[in-house]
Amino acid sequence: MSQLFSEEYSAEVVAESFAGTSDPRLRQVLTSLVRHLHDFVKDVELTEAEWETAIGFLTDTGQTCTPTRQEFILLSDVLGVSMLVETINHRTGGTATESTVLGPFHMVASPVRQLGDDIALDGKGTPCLVSGQVTGPDGAPLAGATVDVWQTNEDGFYDVQQPDLQPQGNLRGIFTTDADGRFWFRSVVPRYYPIPDDGPVGKLLAATGRHPNRPAHLHFIAAADGYRTVTTHVFVADSPYLDSDAVFGVKDSLVRDTPEVDDAARAAEVGLANPFRTLAFDLSLLPA
Amino acid sequence: MSQLFSEEYSAEVVAESFAGTSDPRLRQVLTSLVRHLHDFVKDVELTEAEWETAIGFLTDTGQTCTPTRQEFILLSDVLGVSMLVETINHRTGGTATESTVLGPFHMVASPVRQLGDDIALDGKGTPCLVSGQVTGPDGAPLAGATVDVWQTNEDGFYDVQQPDLQPQGNLRGIFTTDADGRFWFRSVVPRYYPIPDDGPVGKLLAATGRHPNRPAHLHFIAAADGYRTVTTHVFVADSPYLDSDAVFGVKDSLVRDTPEVDDAARAAEVGLANPFRTLAFDLSLLPA
Repeated sequence: MSQLFSEEYSAEVVAESFAGTSDPRLRQVLTSLVRHLHDFVKDVELTEAEWETAIGFLTDTGQTCTPTRQEFILLSDVLGVSMLVETINHRTGGTATESTVLGPFHMVASPVRQLGDDIALDGKGTPCLVSGQVTGPDGAPLAGATVDVWQTNEDGFYDVQQPDLQPQGNLRGIFTTDADGRFWFRSVVPRYYPIPDDGPVGKLLAATGRHPNRPAHLHFIAAADGYRTVTTHVFVADSPYLDSDAVFGVKDSLVRDTPEVDDAARAAEVGLANPFRTLAFDLSLLPA
Repeated sequence: MSQLFSEEYSAEVVAESFAGTSDPRLRQVLTSLVRHLHDFVKDVELTEAEWETAIGFLTDTGQTCTPTRQEFILLSDVLGVSMLVETINHRTGGTATESTVLGPFHMVASPVRQLGDDIALDGKGTPCLVSGQVTGPDGAPLAGATVDVWQTNEDGFYDVQQPDLQPQGNLRGIFTTDADGRFWFRSVVPRYYPIPDDGPVGKLLAATGRHPNRPAHLHFIAAADGYRTVTTHVFVADSPYLDSDAVFGVKDSLVRDTPEVDDAARAAEVGLANPFRTLAFDLSLLPA
């Protein structure tokens, strides 16, 4: 007879039940999960009422999910798990641009744009020239790299949250770097915004005195042949909530100022009204 | 600025976000949860594909729940969490009857029965006389204690799983102990049965080479004024799966033989055909 369940050996007994798992990685993951889950229950001596609350919370979270709403990803986000998984799987050792969470708003293919295009199609917000260079870790420019960007508008909404807005593809685009690895485009300064907080995760944030906001940021996916693709953000240095991102996405290396430029000739050259804001963000990729 | 997210300090950074939680117990539980959850992700270096699988599994589990099906409780059961919570909250120190899981089939009030009644209303199974005594930890009999029992029939179903079966209340009843704290009733030997395995939890069991069965048992809730109510089972010693209960409910102290009695006079006295099986289970309650 196998060892029966006891408080002392609970995790070992359950782990032993996975001995017949054909996939060794699945067995490893479940064994570790059970050990940590049981350690948690023992550490806090979870009460039966708290267990019932947890069962109800997880059930509500699952039942809040729809084809366009993923409440379990939100839960993973606000517990820092999404960011931890992202960080573990994209360690750079300080030699390349750091990654951060993809987020739930990259659900459509971005339109292809030309360098210098204005992606702010709704006429709102503070004009901003975004520019940068994509390089290898040695600083060598990567010509022909793709730079996929998306951000919120002045009201804090991504285009996919405003499906009736015309033209489509507001504040979203794919650019290709020039011979020097450089990219530039016109946009607006992004704005902070709340993650969806009308579900179970919003209730958890409220119960713990946490706000649902993310600091202002511009998403990037930079890709080049022979290099590792990086999924990241650049954060606006003077944004509210920079020190309390609801999903823990901020890294020091990803924060940039957006200084104002007052230069009529330069404004005319790039096609913006003078004065305008600027945001410079270079991306360094690791070899694949 | 608060400390930003890093792999090394991930749990501390997330825990700090709960600093404003007004309920100190909620803060304690969430801080511990985050620490153990992050330790798990780090221990196994969870991949992004595995994280996506986990999100999908949790979502399916939530969406499988209905008013009569609780898939998250099943998940808690097969990971040994339900049993651990039950055990932590009902420690006896070896001085009283041990508890085990309530299970999902005590969803209706059991009918009140008289001592000696036959609760096997469907005419199936191997007749069995169940008897016992309810006492305090010192062995003093507890007269007027209530003993709520429920079990599967010969086909492995509880009455609530056969809502069309008449009369209702098959293999379920509430008895009151006599002046000596004793109870007895007629039933049948319970049968092993599978937990519902046509959902995500069933897929998890299949992927890990585990069967979904529980060994044969009879549920008890014994209650007496001034004593702690005990929720437990008695397990049938020769049942299949006694060493591999899908929900880890078996404890050595709760296993009993069901010896056959071949005694025509005794059979006539209790109203069973000769020979018949017997199951004796005494319950010792702790003071409240």
